[in-house]
This record gives sequence, C-alpha cells and structure tokens, in this order.
Amino acid sequence: MPRIAYVNGKYKTHLRANVHIEDRGFQFADGVYEVIYIYNERFIDIEMHLDRLNRSLRELDISWPVTRRALNIIIGEVVRRNRVKNGNIYIQITRGSSGRDFSYPANLRPSLIIYARKTIKDTIKRSIKGHKVVSKPDIRWKRCDIKTVSLLPAVLAKQAAIELGAIEAWLVDEEGMVTEGTSSNVWIITFDNELITRPANNTILSGVTRKTVLELSREMGLIIKERAFSLSEAKLSKEAFCTSSTALVKPIVQIDMDKVGNGKVGPLTRALIKNYFNYIENFI
Amino acid sequence: MPRIAYVNGKYKTHLRANVHIEDRGFQFADGVYEVIYIYNERFIDIEMHLDRLNRSLRELDISWPVTRRALNIIIGEVVRRNRVKNGNIYIQITRGSSGRDFSYPANLRPSLIIYARKTIKDTIKRSIKGHKVVSKPDIRWKRCDIKTVSLLPAVLAKQAAIELGAIEAWLVDEEGMVTEGTSSNVWIITFDNELITRPANNTILSGVTRKTVLELSREMGLIIKERAFSLSEAKLSKEAFCTSSTALVKPIVQIDMDKVGNGKVGPLTRALIKNYFNYIENFI
Repeated sequence: MPRIAYVNGKYKTHLRANVHIEDRGFQFADGVYEVIYIYNERFIDIEMHLDRLNRSLRELDISWPVTRRALNIIIGEVVRRNRVKNGNIYIQITRGSSGRDFSYPANLRPSLIIYARKTIKDTIKRSIKGHKVVSKPDIRWKRCDIKTVSLLPAVLAKQAAIELGAIEAWLVDEEGMVTEGTSSNVWIITFDNELITRPANNTILSGVTRKTVLELSREMGLIIKERAFSLSEAKLSKEAFCTSSTALVKPIVQIDMDKVGNGKVGPLTRALIKNYFNYIENFI
Repeated sequence: MPRIAYVNGKYKTHLRANVHIEDRGFQFADGVYEVIYIYNERFIDIEMHLDRLNRSLRELDISWPVTRRALNIIIGEVVRRNRVKNGNIYIQITRGSSGRDFSYPANLRPSLIIYARKTIKDTIKRSIKGHKVVSKPDIRWKRCDIKTVSLLPAVLAKQAAIELGAIEAWLVDEEGMVTEGTSSNVWIITFDNELITRPANNTILSGVTRKTVLELSREMGLIIKERAFSLSEAKLSKEAFCTSSTALVKPIVQIDMDKVGNGKVGPLTRALIKNYFNYIENFI
C-alpha cells in the first residue's frame, strides 16, 4: 500500500506529492505548519494545535485554505488511507503560488499539504531514558512565537547537536538565557523542587505539550515558575527535560560537558512522564 | 511558446515545474538562491553571483548539485529556450528531499531549480525616478550574509512597505542603524558629498550590484565611507538610493514622512545611474 498525501485538494501517492516551484513556501518560507502526535488512533491535543495554526495564519495574514471542519475531515482521511495508528500527522499551509515577488497579491489561494507517518508506539519504558543536549547561540528571528517553516537556523543548530552526539540543541540568547530547543520547549527543576520554564513570549514557540505539561504539573501540586533561566542555572539544576508534540517529555541528563543533577533521570521527571502517558492513554 | 523551467535534471513547462513536498527547501527553508539580471542577452556580473552562490552553499554545508560549468550551460539553455533578451534568471538550490527531520542525512542530492523571466528592458530614463521607502524594524536572523530562502521576515516588511505606498522597507536594527532593504542594499550621500554604505558583515547581504557600484564610485573619484548609518542620518542626508541586481540603482527621495535632501533625485545618484548603465551596456 503506497503512502498517500493530501496536496491542494487531491490525494496523491507520496512519491508524486509535489508543489509548484513558485509556491511561496518554497521560495520565501512563507508558510506555517503543525505536527500532531497520533497515539492509539487519537490525535493528541488536536484542537490546541489547530488553535495555534489559526494564530500562525492570522499573524502572517494567510487565510484558511479550507474550513477548520473540512481540515479535520481531511486529516482523518489521510490517517485512514495510510492506516496510521501510532505516528504523527504533518500539516503545512503556505501563502500559495504566484509569480515570484517578495510582496504578495491579495486573495492568493493558500496551499495545503497534509501527510501522516507511522512510528513505533511510544512506551513509558522507552521514554524514560536520559539524553544529552548541547548549547548553541540562538540566532533566529524575533518572531519565534509563529510556527513558520522558516526553520533554517533550527536546522543548523539541530544538525550541529546531532554531530556532537546530542539529541537536541538548547538555544541561548545574547544574555546567556536559554530560550528553547530547536523543536522543543525546555524545562529545569531546581534543588528546591521548583519547576522552571521560560514564559511563552515572542522568543519561543508556545508548545502544545508545554501547555499540557504545565496543566499536569499544576494537578500534581508542583511549584511552577514561568521565568527565564540561564544556561549556567540549567547546568546546576537537579533535573531537566524537553517537551514537544512528537518527542513528548524527554529527560535531559547532560548539557554540553556537564551532568544535570546526578546524571540520572530524576524522580519528578519520571512522575511527569508517567502522568503524561496517563494523559495520552486517556485522551479522547 | 510555453515557459520552460529546469527542475532537477529536466526541462519542464512552467506549469508542471514541481518539487516534492518533502524538499527541504519547502519544509525548512533549507536552501539558497541567486537572481541574475539579463540585459541585452548578457548575464550581468554572473561570475560574482556564482561566487556568492558557492559561498552560500559552503556556509550551509550543501554541495553543488552540478558543476559550475554545467550550471552555466543550464542557465544558457533555460534563457535560450525562453528567448529572454532582457529579464532575469532565478537559481535555487536546496539541500534536497528526504523524510522530514530537522537534521539531515549525509550525501543528500541537492535540488536545483532554474527559470527565467522576461522584463521590459530598463532604460536610464525609466530608472531616474525618485521613490519612497519606509523604515521597519529588522527582526531577521543573524546570518543575513547568506542568501537563503528563509525570507519570511523580508516578505512581511516588503508587504508592509507596499501597503504604505512605498517601494521598499529599510530595515533598522535595535541601535537605530539602517541595515539594508528587504532585497536591496542601502546608500546615502551626505552634504559633504560622501557616499556612505554599511560594511558587508553578517547583518547584510553582500550585494553584487553593491560591489559594482562601489567600484564605479571609486573610478568616479567619490569619497566612499563603508560605515553604518542611522535612520535619522539617512533622513537628513542629501541623496539616497538602493541597489540590487534586479532594481539596479534606485533613487530614494522620501524615507517615511521625510524628504531626502530637496526631495528630488540628486546629481551624484544620477551620475551613478548613468555610469551603471554604461557598465551594463558594455558588459561582455
């Protein structure tokens, strides 16, 4: 069974899923995207993802290519045709195709691309493994709150991290503060058992999993501080982890050459992972 | 005669010129480009453009999809097939297509897209017309020296400028200094007849036309200062202009609500335009 992708109104085999060379997504990074995690055939936090998609589109003055209701139907159809029970769905909307010009014509028809990927079902056991990250300067633009495909700086930092044997790069601004990972939000737990994460402003993407984990942490009665933290503070913290819609809650036990805490996955991170799995197991 | 584009080894009609939805240019803005001006069938400053392309590729660790010699042949063939005597040629190279992942596999085959556009032949008379620009905050990433397709911030600033009845946005950094236009370098002439332009560092693209105009200015015996200038200084300058490979030398007579000098195209700008036309008329 070939993989099927939805491209601008048509279901295509993945191999033939193409966009025009003058699609503004290709020539100008003039588009946005979302990735939704699929667990046991449920689309985890889909409404939050579509809310964020709506915000991204609005910030860039791109209209919805189809109604939100139609988008939901197409997503379901793509997943059905590809028989994805565990994996993720990728949605990209660009401003559309037109003769190349930095400025854009009014009423351009946006492009819509949706495809799904199968992955091995995540388990708590597989998720509770400590990982290493490296720090890299945050050289991105000043609107990281919009989930655009203008991802080149993130690509370069992620690639550098992989080449150093790490799973992610933690980006550090000119003041030495950690902003976020290349495709994840970042968290630390202090020796006072305070859970710290950077507030969602224009320097980071407001992660859907970040919101869910904040909510779960509140329910667990944790002390939560939404404030910026420095790379030095992260390296001296007790526990650390990343969150993203596809990596879920990922324990970090080493930052650059420094162990976090005792270098093992800590108890609060374990408890959060357990609660996050409980959340997605029971997601309707 | 249909327009023909070169896409990854094949000549396609423009309508059918497509790239895959997982081309990293489309999903990550992971690619670079060049636009070369065609005047009287000559490719103006082509070797400087290909030198810069080479640098952009090297900075992003993308290999050449074909040899430089082959690229020259393809460019010639695209222009021949489209019978372009005056216009421009667009070259885009991306890291290639692969399963979506921020990091990239080794030895990916880069994508190469080339197409040409006809435009009305520029004349000195049409070029000596004063234009208005507006200032916008420069919110771009910190590697504007690489000519990548990660152009969304430039798109947003250019669109805002167009909507305000201007032809370009001049981008201003946090210190109030003008960096460049969204797709042009910026210049002012002081009341001491000094020609000022920002030095080419990682905050701006080192323009090919900028280099040529610098050279022509030297030949004219002008006093040239490569230094940063503020928006306020620009507004109080005697003359101002932009340069780019497609807009050539473009006089600016208004910045935001302020007239530059007496609000008319000044004598040094006129002389530079004349010399630039002389340069392209005699380009071999």
